[in-house]
Amino acid sequence: MNQEFTWQLRIYYEDTDASGLVYHGRYVNFFERARTEWLRDLGFEQDVLATKFGILFVVHSMKLDYLKPARFNDQILVHSQLSKIRKVSMLFAQHIYKTSPNILLCKAAIQIACIDSTKLSPVSIPTDILQKIWSQKI
Amino acid sequence: MNQEFTWQLRIYYEDTDASGLVYHGRYVNFFERARTEWLRDLGFEQDVLATKFGILFVVHSMKLDYLKPARFNDQILVHSQLSKIRKVSMLFAQHIYKTSPNILLCKAAIQIACIDSTKLSPVSIPTDILQKIWSQKI
Amino acid sequence: MNQEFTWQLRIYYEDTDASGLVYHGRYVNFFERARTEWLRDLGFEQDVLATKFGILFVVHSMKLDYLKPARFNDQILVHSQLSKIRKVSMLFAQHIYKTSPNILLCKAAIQIACIDSTKLSPVSIPTDILQKIWSQKI
Amino acid sequence: MNQEFTWQLRIYYEDTDASGLVYHGRYVNFFERARTEWLRDLGFEQDVLATKFGILFVVHSMKLDYLKPARFNDQILVHSQLSKIRKVSMLFAQHIYKTSPNILLCKAAIQIACIDSTKLSPVSIPTDILQKIWSQKI
Repeated sequence: MNQEFTWQLRIYYEDTDASGLVYHGRYVNFFERARTEWLRDLGFEQDVLATKFGILFVVHSMKLDYLKPARFNDQILVHSQLSKIRKVSMLFAQHIYKTSPNILLCKAAIQIACIDSTKLSPVSIPTDILQKIWSQKI
Repeated sequence: MNQEFTWQLRIYYEDTDASGLVYHGRYVNFFERARTEWLRDLGFEQDVLATKFGILFVVHSMKLDYLKPARFNDQILVHSQLSKIRKVSMLFAQHIYKTSPNILLCKAAIQIACIDSTKLSPVSIPTDILQKIWSQKI
Repeated sequence: MNQEFTWQLRIYYEDTDASGLVYHGRYVNFFERARTEWLRDLGFEQDVLATKFGILFVVHSMKLDYLKPARFNDQILVHSQLSKIRKVSMLFAQHIYKTSPNILLCKAAIQIACIDSTKLSPVSIPTDILQKIWSQKI
Repeated sequence: MNQEFTWQLRIYYEDTDASGLVYHGRYVNFFERARTEWLRDLGFEQDVLATKFGILFVVHSMKLDYLKPARFNDQILVHSQLSKIRKVSMLFAQHIYKTSPNILLCKAAIQIACIDSTKLSPVSIPTDILQKIWSQKI
């Protein structure tokens, strides 16, 4: 579908655990930061979306595969691609790579739902966002 | 397979985010705490396993489905069940429920690999653990 | 001032870092969990306080001294004592001990302010709480 | 003493809590990330220091004052200044500002000890680091 968005991150002590590796739960945070930056790159700030449209984007389901571990001080890249978009949901394919050399560490399929921030029930993704995404497609 | 293990947790401020709900990544931590307590309940401490057998249990893949959100101050129960055990891996079915009333919040299928803590390559799950698990089966 | 309140915690992988020790920032979370449980033990739930009185308790300042490190799997005790109470603030003396043997790991002086949850400006601590605290003093 | 080092950060959902504000413990992480980047900027990678010199830099004590809250999506700047350096310890003055407009959110005095990574006892800061710091002083 649309272009891949890349976001660079550094692994700090807070991201690691006593095994010497990055704590597996932290990848979930890295993927979320990258989706936030993808949306910002499209021109949408989530605090504005919450105020203006009363919506939240929440994770509905996610599947993560851990291939290789990251370690303290590693520089990583999160590649994010919107693979499907529906009226009330988006499916992302996200991959985390270690740089120099380039090694795939973790891949994820993450389904995001658009919900009403008060009722917490599904609502349509704002047209502004849909149009912006479609305009980038070709 | 074997009996379900239940672990109770409380939601603190640290677990929530500005949406007012529990941050989706925190459920990964809750599932991990519950597996740690499951193993402790069987009689195995992971720091001892690391020293004695040179092994680590790491997450190889996980699939989480978010059904309902948890909130600050909620009391939750993590139900954990070992659904498959192989030579070097275990598959867990884990569910998080809110109590009073009982509501299923999140369900997960989490595959754990047993690895050598130095080489980070797959190794057999220690026989002591396998025997203990099999002895509980009936 | 009033009695010491003790809260027991377990160190999980999520609390440690690649140094093999507990990440220093996690103690801040442990102290906060213990204050939440202290307040619950007094009979006050913070979600109810937010709804009923429109208040939040926030950290105004904190001083932590790290004496000895905790490690994965350690069982720790958080001792919390309210050392001063004013109209809009409370000062806590909190200590974290490792058990068996008993070793003081970290001590903290933490000042908590009572604020209006909307305006974020200081407001009086609800009389119900003050009365409950004073009734426990002797 | 030496020049101030500035590091920019973004507030993500993971950094906030159900009060709608940034969780107070997260500032500790932000300060630590900034010190890591300060050291990297001087030319020292902590994973290399651990391997080459067998040392760790750990927090010995910290005092944080919270002045104004940060919120989701805020862009913040961490200003870090080494205010004292001794044989086995360093004292940092660190400030977090919100940008546009410039508002001081949190200030901290953080004492860092240099320790042997195995024995966990104080050791001299490597001469390479001291020389690099002194060379920047004027």
